[in-house]
Amino acid sequence: MSRTMSNWEAVEGDLATPAGFRAAAVAAGIKKTAGALDLALIASDSAATTAAGVFTTNRVAAAPVVLSRQHLMESRGRCRAVVVNAGNANACTGKEGALAAEETARAAAELLEIEPTQVLVASTGVIGVTLRTDLILPQLPVLKDKLSKENAAAAADAILTTDTARKICTVRSEFKGKPVHISGVAKGSGMIHPRMATMLAFITTDASIGARMLHHLLLDAVEDSFNRVTVDGDTSTNDSVIALASGLSEVAVIPGNESRAWFAEGLGQVCQCLARKIARDGEGASKLVTVEVLGARTPLDADRVARAIGNSPLVKTALAGADPNWGRIICAAGYSGAKFNPTRVDISVNSLELCRQGVDAGFDEAAAHRELEQKELVVRIDLHAGKATAMVWTCDFTHGYIDINSSYRS
Amino acid sequence: MSRTMSNWEAVEGDLATPAGFRAAAVAAGIKKTAGALDLALIASDSAATTAAGVFTTNRVAAAPVVLSRQHLMESRGRCRAVVVNAGNANACTGKEGALAAEETARAAAELLEIEPTQVLVASTGVIGVTLRTDLILPQLPVLKDKLSKENAAAAADAILTTDTARKICTVRSEFKGKPVHISGVAKGSGMIHPRMATMLAFITTDASIGARMLHHLLLDAVEDSFNRVTVDGDTSTNDSVIALASGLSEVAVIPGNESRAWFAEGLGQVCQCLARKIARDGEGASKLVTVEVLGARTPLDADRVARAIGNSPLVKTALAGADPNWGRIICAAGYSGAKFNPTRVDISVNSLELCRQGVDAGFDEAAAHRELEQKELVVRIDLHAGKATAMVWTCDFTHGYIDINSSYRS
Repeated sequence: MSRTMSNWEAVEGDLATPAGFRAAAVAAGIKKTAGALDLALIASDSAATTAAGVFTTNRVAAAPVVLSRQHLMESRGRCRAVVVNAGNANACTGKEGALAAEETARAAAELLEIEPTQVLVASTGVIGVTLRTDLILPQLPVLKDKLSKENAAAAADAILTTDTARKICTVRSEFKGKPVHISGVAKGSGMIHPRMATMLAFITTDASIGARMLHHLLLDAVEDSFNRVTVDGDTSTNDSVIALASGLSEVAVIPGNESRAWFAEGLGQVCQCLARKIARDGEGASKLVTVEVLGARTPLDADRVARAIGNSPLVKTALAGADPNWGRIICAAGYSGAKFNPTRVDISVNSLELCRQGVDAGFDEAAAHRELEQKELVVRIDLHAGKATAMVWTCDFTHGYIDINSSYRS
Repeated sequence: MSRTMSNWEAVEGDLATPAGFRAAAVAAGIKKTAGALDLALIASDSAATTAAGVFTTNRVAAAPVVLSRQHLMESRGRCRAVVVNAGNANACTGKEGALAAEETARAAAELLEIEPTQVLVASTGVIGVTLRTDLILPQLPVLKDKLSKENAAAAADAILTTDTARKICTVRSEFKGKPVHISGVAKGSGMIHPRMATMLAFITTDASIGARMLHHLLLDAVEDSFNRVTVDGDTSTNDSVIALASGLSEVAVIPGNESRAWFAEGLGQVCQCLARKIARDGEGASKLVTVEVLGARTPLDADRVARAIGNSPLVKTALAGADPNWGRIICAAGYSGAKFNPTRVDISVNSLELCRQGVDAGFDEAAAHRELEQKELVVRIDLHAGKATAMVWTCDFTHGYIDINSSYRS
């Protein structure tokens, strides 16, 4: 839970800040809102580019997830470009959907003069509606012409759906005096649950790193970031986190060298930064909530308690109402499956103790209510059953979530 | 899933319809609303009465749950009375809470001239606030004086919290020409999740049945009723289902006799009737939703899919908005952990097919929207992966849930 001094510094920037990358976005008419950006192309100019991806564990995987997995395998992690659309998930669309993903990758590859297996695709939006390639294919040459450093920021907008804010994180550091950048964009909002990589995130770096190591480090980073966010407990059909490394910086990340831990830290920082932005911008959310579990018997128990609290609609509605209802927090811990003695449990929100040794800590109601009106809350529960800890990020649960999701076909 | 002709007939009545039972309720001032009934006593006049209980699996069990478990054990299932309050859960209240439950049972036992271990207690309401025995103890003599057949229906009101409707089910049948009655009351609404008996339900019968068999049959009945309801995925600290059998009818339910299956059917009918009422009256609910899973590989897979769909906030908000968003239904099945081939899945709501072999079935949008505006919906998913089936009852997810649960300390 402690935060060490970081070697990596957050900087202004976007996916094109790392050397070698360009990006662009257009309004292809896939989203309902006329003129909304909904199709983006991210590409690396470097032939040395490596790629890695982490995808949904949902048995119902969208066509772009199936194709991107295949392309990463077939190209042995040498993918150089990503075509991503919002407004349509291209999931549960049968052979037509698979064909749409393939045609998109093939057409982009032709324009970029690379192999089709070097193009990854990603989609987000409504499930079960055929993705119209007649909207996408004519825009690919336009996107190719627009590819630039300047247009890259627009890609962060094109991937959003019900998100209310653009999600970009860029960091910079030097290894033995040589600079490296890592940048990421993400979309979150609904169907967010960490049984896997959460929704869409794209990461670029100019580090030189083998595809296999990039994959391992990405898996680790995802586990401690996107997989620790929960908005509604629903694991999407389209979750994809894709990392591209151009290799154009002079820094090589290699096994058995301190460069590995150094790069892992920067990658982790970008993923955690994006994950927090996703939690804060959960559908209808008004607050970013960090759930910290201390003193669990085992890491699994700690994780169970953190997720039970982070997923509980009763806890999340109480936080929306700034109600210091610690009973719902200990109740969620109780049904999580973790072993602990309820009479030893302490619970606090921010610096305010609500429950001590399983009973009311005798806090001031008005002060607690005021504290819970903060926009960032840390819910901390100490089980006093061991030394394991865990953390998840979530948000409160408001009318906004119902509004967004009960409308006739989002 | 098929419904056989029942030997048991639903009749008007309440907990006092079975011979030997009387009940009463008073306003003790435990609920915030002045004058609201919040304390009830249910008692059997028969010394032959047997009792059984099924309680929450939450590790944080309320004081009345701990005490009732103990009394059932110590009396070997010879409990004859139940004292139940709403407005305060008496959970996470430490030694004071345990003492409050004990004092209540002891005082009631003295008035009824039975052993303290023959009294069960149950509470529902807010967690973490000390239960005031100074409000309860003076009312026990009043309750004892009011005990009658006529006052029994009021007990069904006294146990409610955010429920909007009284939940009573009574059935009658004859075994070899001799009548038996089974009646039940329940409270539901929030913190409803079937990792155990759901919130509070009390069942009376005049059948003559051993405590051990009553317990076995109650476990089975609970599994197919209360444990198949989900409102919000939160398992409460207070869930209790208690059955009392006065033995005053001339029918003995005995092992190795067809009376066992016959009684189990009636008990199951009462529990399922109450479970459906709980789902229909879930906090903020506007619709009763039955999720039916067909063609699963194993019963566990069927159960996982049913619960994933029934718990999905995205599915439940879509149903609230009458949105035939089958993509969210197949998505929930996909992350449930069950094994199936997505391209073989069929999904329908009521008689309307929405998804065939994993893709849009080509339904009429307007007709589907109209169908989903019904107050009772059956969501049916056929995985075509085997022969196992499962079912859960749930409700839609509306602003009402947020309103009820985000208010400052419910």
